[in-house]
Amino acid sequence: MPRLSRWLFSGLLLSLVGIARAQPPRGPLVVSPEVHADHTVTFRYLAPTAREVKLSGQFEKSAVSLTKNEQGIWSVTVGPVKPDIYPYSFQVDGVTVMDPANVAFFPNERFKASLVDVPGDTPLIHALKDVPHGTVSYEYYPSVEGTTGSLVVYTPPGYDQNPTKKYPVYYLISGTTDTEETFYKVGRTNLILDNLLAEGKTKPMIIVMPYGNIAARITEQKGGAKPADPVVRDDADAVNRANAFGDDLIQNIIPYIEKNYRTLANRENRAIGGFSRGGGQTLRAAFGHMDTFAWVCAYSSYLSPAEMERSYRTIASNPAQTNKQLKLLWVSVGSDDFLYKGTLEFMDYLKAKNVNFKSRITDGGHTWMNVKKYVAETAPLLFQ
Amino acid sequence: MPRLSRWLFSGLLLSLVGIARAQPPRGPLVVSPEVHADHTVTFRYLAPTAREVKLSGQFEKSAVSLTKNEQGIWSVTVGPVKPDIYPYSFQVDGVTVMDPANVAFFPNERFKASLVDVPGDTPLIHALKDVPHGTVSYEYYPSVEGTTGSLVVYTPPGYDQNPTKKYPVYYLISGTTDTEETFYKVGRTNLILDNLLAEGKTKPMIIVMPYGNIAARITEQKGGAKPADPVVRDDADAVNRANAFGDDLIQNIIPYIEKNYRTLANRENRAIGGFSRGGGQTLRAAFGHMDTFAWVCAYSSYLSPAEMERSYRTIASNPAQTNKQLKLLWVSVGSDDFLYKGTLEFMDYLKAKNVNFKSRITDGGHTWMNVKKYVAETAPLLFQ
Repeated sequence: MPRLSRWLFSGLLLSLVGIARAQPPRGPLVVSPEVHADHTVTFRYLAPTAREVKLSGQFEKSAVSLTKNEQGIWSVTVGPVKPDIYPYSFQVDGVTVMDPANVAFFPNERFKASLVDVPGDTPLIHALKDVPHGTVSYEYYPSVEGTTGSLVVYTPPGYDQNPTKKYPVYYLISGTTDTEETFYKVGRTNLILDNLLAEGKTKPMIIVMPYGNIAARITEQKGGAKPADPVVRDDADAVNRANAFGDDLIQNIIPYIEKNYRTLANRENRAIGGFSRGGGQTLRAAFGHMDTFAWVCAYSSYLSPAEMERSYRTIASNPAQTNKQLKLLWVSVGSDDFLYKGTLEFMDYLKAKNVNFKSRITDGGHTWMNVKKYVAETAPLLFQ
Repeated sequence: MPRLSRWLFSGLLLSLVGIARAQPPRGPLVVSPEVHADHTVTFRYLAPTAREVKLSGQFEKSAVSLTKNEQGIWSVTVGPVKPDIYPYSFQVDGVTVMDPANVAFFPNERFKASLVDVPGDTPLIHALKDVPHGTVSYEYYPSVEGTTGSLVVYTPPGYDQNPTKKYPVYYLISGTTDTEETFYKVGRTNLILDNLLAEGKTKPMIIVMPYGNIAARITEQKGGAKPADPVVRDDADAVNRANAFGDDLIQNIIPYIEKNYRTLANRENRAIGGFSRGGGQTLRAAFGHMDTFAWVCAYSSYLSPAEMERSYRTIASNPAQTNKQLKLLWVSVGSDDFLYKGTLEFMDYLKAKNVNFKSRITDGGHTWMNVKKYVAETAPLLFQ
């Protein structure tokens, strides 16, 4: 524990457990981020000896500098910021750090970012509202090579009160270096579903959020270094890894869920979707197992026409059958996304081959702000 | 998103979604922590331009320095370390940061630490083993002043397979600046229970882990700055805050749990326990509501004899009744804990008043290594 935190912690504890003694010396407590009613946001960071503190947030094009007060607290106010949830971090003398005053963070294998939630004047679709809430559960399941896999599972409001009702299932896969928590903690998928359900805009469903990095888990649990190197060497390696995930999904995750949750266990009641790498895993699992999934959503992701022709030729060679089997094929991307061009090529390929799909081009880039939009737009389309 | 992370991230993604293009420039990927078979641990941190990087971990008495290689990766190997789970952080040019290569972190309102798990040669009681696993669920409940509270709830293996079986409940409260996630993510309470159950050493029970800082949640949800100042001004303030939590527990949390989970809803099947501030909240809630709880565990915490006499005089004035009502009163502390002396005074008070209790003095300080021990020792005593 850092020294500053330790004595803050000790001091707080001493008073909190109710001990009569002189107050220990105590630094200023920092409130950060402070979101103001006009959508401006003040960020603060305590660093009396630092020479430079900057803020990088996905609400700003480039880093902004903070200024220090006489207490050693650096601060800056930005905005007004468009209401949404944004990742951000500080650079303290060039070192990237999370905001130590903020408990909301971005679960990720590699980078460390905090999250700031700028609420709308009317609550946004991911806001915590006074509506019935579902439950988010963390589960272990027996996975490949004797490892224990982890899942985050959303069950809708009322799931425990209707002990005979069965539900369709949406399998939802996060991106590279994300974890099984990212769709919950950053994507707020649970609150989006709670709110859509309260408005009568979607069917109640179970959402299963796996961890996409099988290789890292095997390495970790077999006693290797953690996490495993996520660098993918080439296209074939990417396909192999996606297929390893797809195999785990089909052979282990779906059977575990269908045994332990009350599911409608047929292809018409299974959807699959994902962001970024998870979108690639989605398309490969769906096109490789057309008997398993009838609803498919690729958020900010695609497969190349070359891979489609090489590995999933039947999708395009028999569009009538594909269109009959797939109740939904959704492809979306932001116009600033570095995958924009590739995604358009994928759409062009599908169009040229007469494969039906729905598409959505939004503003913005390869961000979780866009993922939330895509989840909110696609959930109402599923299982209808 | 930090710049380094962003291009790492982009590079990884490009290859992971399977795009044929030249590899972007890429820094070395850092593996940290790397736990070796001999219980030594190597920590690494990428910071080519830093002047000094140190490591603070609860396995070391004081910070240790890292050395830099030609790639700009700082590293140090420590130990052998006694097998356990330890919080640690880096100080990079004096700035405390989590380990960006490690996804295991300490959920806390204030300080930021990562977690390193040094496994035993035979698995420890908190290890992930191939045994039946319970489920950890995140729930919202209607709390005070129109706010929405958060709970983490452990249900034992088989809970969903026995739809008529009812369970006793252990309410377990974390410490100052901890969150509702800390007993799960740092305390591994779910795995400790899974393992004890597999060995037939404890009864199956539901464990409910609330967030203890009511004031912060009210401030946050009512549009104030987040988190609220946790500084407690004096003894009376500490008592008021503990009582506010106790009221929420009795009026909102317990009714929510008993409505939504299959519980044995009587005092003989309700236990309460907590660490540090949560231990103080535990003792106040238990002594203030003797009709509600029959099993009470204070981990690294106590009440002063003065407060006992002022607020809970019937506990000591009628020990025969207290001893009949409380199936268990457990008090534990580490000999290096800064609350050691006060805890001994509390024990002496109980002894002098002929109030029965069980006590456990361990090595070590005010740490989550000790909390895990206390949970593992007390769970087998509950509901017997």
